[in-house]
Amino acid sequence: MPDTAPLPKITTGPLPGSRKIYVEGSRPDIRVAMREIALEAACGEAPVRVYDCSGPFTDPALRVDIAKGVPALRAQWILERGDVEHYEGRAHRPEDDGLKPGETISVPVFDRTGRRPLRGKSGKAPTQLAYARAGIITPEMEYVAIRENMKRAETARDGEDFGADIPDEVTPEFVRSEIARGRAVLPANVNHPEAEPMIIGRNFLTKINANIGNSAVASSVEEEVEKMVWATRWGADTVMDLSTGRHIHATREWIIRNSPVPIGTVPIYQALEKVDGKAEELSWEIFRDTLIEQAEQGVDYFTIHAGVLLRYIPLTAKRTTGIVSRGGSIMAKWCLAHHKENFLYTHFEDICELLKAYDVGFSLGDGLRPGSIADANDAAQFGELETLGELTHKAWAHDCQVIIEGPGHVPMHKIKKNVEKQIELCGEAPFYTLGPLVTDIAPGYDHITSAIGAAMIGWFGTAMLCYVTPKEHLGLPDKQDVREGVVTYKLAAHAADLAKGHPGAQLRDNALSRARFEFRWKDQFNLSLDPEKALAFHDQHLPAEGAKLAHFCSMCGPKFCSMKISQEVRDFAAAEQGMAEMSDKFVKDGAEIYHTEKPAAAE
Amino acid sequence: MPDTAPLPKITTGPLPGSRKIYVEGSRPDIRVAMREIALEAACGEAPVRVYDCSGPFTDPALRVDIAKGVPALRAQWILERGDVEHYEGRAHRPEDDGLKPGETISVPVFDRTGRRPLRGKSGKAPTQLAYARAGIITPEMEYVAIRENMKRAETARDGEDFGADIPDEVTPEFVRSEIARGRAVLPANVNHPEAEPMIIGRNFLTKINANIGNSAVASSVEEEVEKMVWATRWGADTVMDLSTGRHIHATREWIIRNSPVPIGTVPIYQALEKVDGKAEELSWEIFRDTLIEQAEQGVDYFTIHAGVLLRYIPLTAKRTTGIVSRGGSIMAKWCLAHHKENFLYTHFEDICELLKAYDVGFSLGDGLRPGSIADANDAAQFGELETLGELTHKAWAHDCQVIIEGPGHVPMHKIKKNVEKQIELCGEAPFYTLGPLVTDIAPGYDHITSAIGAAMIGWFGTAMLCYVTPKEHLGLPDKQDVREGVVTYKLAAHAADLAKGHPGAQLRDNALSRARFEFRWKDQFNLSLDPEKALAFHDQHLPAEGAKLAHFCSMCGPKFCSMKISQEVRDFAAAEQGMAEMSDKFVKDGAEIYHTEKPAAAE
Repeated sequence: MPDTAPLPKITTGPLPGSRKIYVEGSRPDIRVAMREIALEAACGEAPVRVYDCSGPFTDPALRVDIAKGVPALRAQWILERGDVEHYEGRAHRPEDDGLKPGETISVPVFDRTGRRPLRGKSGKAPTQLAYARAGIITPEMEYVAIRENMKRAETARDGEDFGADIPDEVTPEFVRSEIARGRAVLPANVNHPEAEPMIIGRNFLTKINANIGNSAVASSVEEEVEKMVWATRWGADTVMDLSTGRHIHATREWIIRNSPVPIGTVPIYQALEKVDGKAEELSWEIFRDTLIEQAEQGVDYFTIHAGVLLRYIPLTAKRTTGIVSRGGSIMAKWCLAHHKENFLYTHFEDICELLKAYDVGFSLGDGLRPGSIADANDAAQFGELETLGELTHKAWAHDCQVIIEGPGHVPMHKIKKNVEKQIELCGEAPFYTLGPLVTDIAPGYDHITSAIGAAMIGWFGTAMLCYVTPKEHLGLPDKQDVREGVVTYKLAAHAADLAKGHPGAQLRDNALSRARFEFRWKDQFNLSLDPEKALAFHDQHLPAEGAKLAHFCSMCGPKFCSMKISQEVRDFAAAEQGMAEMSDKFVKDGAEIYHTEKPAAAE
Repeated sequence: MPDTAPLPKITTGPLPGSRKIYVEGSRPDIRVAMREIALEAACGEAPVRVYDCSGPFTDPALRVDIAKGVPALRAQWILERGDVEHYEGRAHRPEDDGLKPGETISVPVFDRTGRRPLRGKSGKAPTQLAYARAGIITPEMEYVAIRENMKRAETARDGEDFGADIPDEVTPEFVRSEIARGRAVLPANVNHPEAEPMIIGRNFLTKINANIGNSAVASSVEEEVEKMVWATRWGADTVMDLSTGRHIHATREWIIRNSPVPIGTVPIYQALEKVDGKAEELSWEIFRDTLIEQAEQGVDYFTIHAGVLLRYIPLTAKRTTGIVSRGGSIMAKWCLAHHKENFLYTHFEDICELLKAYDVGFSLGDGLRPGSIADANDAAQFGELETLGELTHKAWAHDCQVIIEGPGHVPMHKIKKNVEKQIELCGEAPFYTLGPLVTDIAPGYDHITSAIGAAMIGWFGTAMLCYVTPKEHLGLPDKQDVREGVVTYKLAAHAADLAKGHPGAQLRDNALSRARFEFRWKDQFNLSLDPEKALAFHDQHLPAEGAKLAHFCSMCGPKFCSMKISQEVRDFAAAEQGMAEMSDKFVKDGAEIYHTEKPAAAE
């Protein structure tokens, strides 16, 4: 193995104006990472704490060695429960990386010396759902409660939550009860102790997922690891590795060992690689082997397209865009080739038993999601959703955690029905949607067409939003596309939290708006989702450092800054004197209220 | 005057795959411009007609000489009604361009030789509203009916329109009746005969406005004219010139003489320049003179902040972001300085008489719109809206056309109330909103935060959406920001039309989705809102010409293209044979259904 090949280069260091803090829980090894944004001293405001997905990479006190992976903060918690055991594990095979017999791997390989996989002891269910049902509050649940609960109580509640059950304060017991009733999921494979606990559920903050992964025609190991680090830096709550080319196994190992967030995959992609891309040669045995391979590595949730039933496939024939899910089309092809029911459906209970042993969550895939406005909410889509509801209850019976994937392409007026049907059919299991895109006519801008749908469906009750990048439908996203997609989905998820009335969600908006009104430019940049872009945009016209103190920007210039004028208006109006008196004073003071000198970049 | 200075460089020529067509009306001089997108011959589909705002600049048969302006297509229609007359007009003054006595203008000046302004004859109301009320269908109204009505009847209706009254077919009589009841506006200054008629109203296609204009610290005449041409190229239905620096008059003349879309302004900006930026020195006389100056040039609608009343100003004192409208803050300052009621309010009937003579529309400004989530839907905002309702009815009594401006920053759950209150208070006068932004925390991405709100408020009934660019809050947009903002708002407006169930809106989505499913890459690009960007994104990984024929892209690569697999699934499922038979055939045919060779750019 070419151990001397260069290791991936990754982005580290804090975001501008930010530092990493840790809030301790009931035991010293529960240390919940948060980001604290310092504000200008003169404003007298406390630093603003924000949810932080970026892991050790943004903590300058921790020097991450990606050859060793990030710290395994859950290792002790997993072992002390006494229901898992180390075992030898499945031997790695060349075909796991798409290699032909005799070929050697040409990418760096993560050194697993001394690492053996864990799985549940016979008869045990080491899942967060099983613990929750047994009334146990795990350290993971407590971590999540602290993480979700940042300073919530400080603002008044205001929102429309469409029947959600969002508490004023998130307690560990609330986390437990939500998991116990299947309404929230805490993805936590026993073989991914590096992941910081997080929760996906309608009554918690809306989460976002970023897809990464190489395809047969683009990308590399280096790029994918950096994309994962980069995605979490900008705020991805989970990352799905959708690689389909060679070196899938090796790439995934690097990603998981270094990922501070749960990792999801679609195992059928790798299974298909193992049969050389021939869907009809797929089998339960090959698929099962792939599940074990990935569960041992530490994948936290699997997309399983078990709802693509033989009887639904003809329903797609008249569609404008047929089947647009890769997994869905693969399974449809298999079903037709064999004229048999989907083996993911017929072996569903076997899959449950397997996933239970590692606490890998189900993400029940919507293989028949609509790929165009024309196909939204049709019989194929809702037929499959009904089957996903049936499978949800089966998985729950095995103590498996479940989330449900959703569309896709849906015009605005048909979005709400998706959430209502999903809640009804799937017993409130968390909904996890891709967008949806609200029109088909804007390739190149589909992060935006989908953010519109995502914000709305998040508001209506979707727990996690799968991002879409500007490259959707056109090509594989690069690093900057990942950033654009993540930030776009962060703002959509945040808009959903505001509208649902999440306590505390508005704190950051308020802090940023005050900074804006008071011309604290650096605070405004630092409080934003993408401080570097905000700064760069401002500096295109007014790069001088002094302009960051100016009471205007290049948009309106000094004379026309309404914020500036408004501050003066406020000073007068706020005084307890009569209006006439205020008016006199205003004129007497000269009313020369704006800068007349031109800034550095003036033309 | 430096006539030798170089003229602005402008972008001309058709969009990829498109040609300009003209649909003739009841008389030969009614020729409605549309864009026709040709599809690959093999697909057998008719070209797709789309709404076209770009004017003569995209017609290669017309060589535009911007020194002469674009053709005055409405000139004859205006004159033949016999209710307007030429007159000498107001003499141009140095201060119109911000010049001190003795200074000479340093930018090119449009040659107005032989052009005299028009205005209504004494006692006449040459407004589209007056004609509509009199039962007259003007050529402008017929033009609009043809323009709005493109192939609508072809698709089934599907949508939720919240009580709108969208007809299956737009007739000239429908246009007339909507204008007559004030529910739609056809901006058409008698001095802007170059503008192609368009309509703004809840029962017509959702429109978008692009703001351009220089500020004291950035931009130039050249850039602004090109920005106008550029904005309409990408789809701006109207353009507002918000210039605040020097050369306002000269810049505006270039813009209006070359603009195929209605032009709006905020006259108080120029008035303030004339008093050297001192709001308290503004007066009715200076403002009135500015209105005449701009009405004679041909501005089609004026933003007038007549609803900022003295009694509302103290309501802004406790706000997080005070007054964020430039015009609002200027008028608030004037009111406080003089302790007098807003002169735009006290002189409102005078303004009506003046605007009526030219058919300049009112855009009643929301000077107290919220500038942050914290301030949304507050007493100041809704107090002003009530006054705007009162003024709407006053303006209508003078036969003036009216639209109402709206917010701003509003969380999703508070958006609908804005539309409901506006409809109720303003008698269904068209609503024209800025976004709204649904969160404050994403400067650099505010075209997106606001497109979410814009799509929703458009769906609920807003007639025109004022765009926001990525530079919002940070700086003056450049040309690429204008494009990004316009396309973003086009997609938001289109999403609103889809959700409202506009007949025919879905035609373009369907055509693009079919092209996508059939791997007609060029058709997919050409049918999109920004063909050049879609092509460029695709070509980053697969630049070879042959890749435009490939049945995959770099996103999934050849093996995993669901569209590809799905097409094969469809072929089998669609046959009238039994499933078992299909399955046999599928396997027998080898099922080798994807390309295994790698494309040119493969790694």
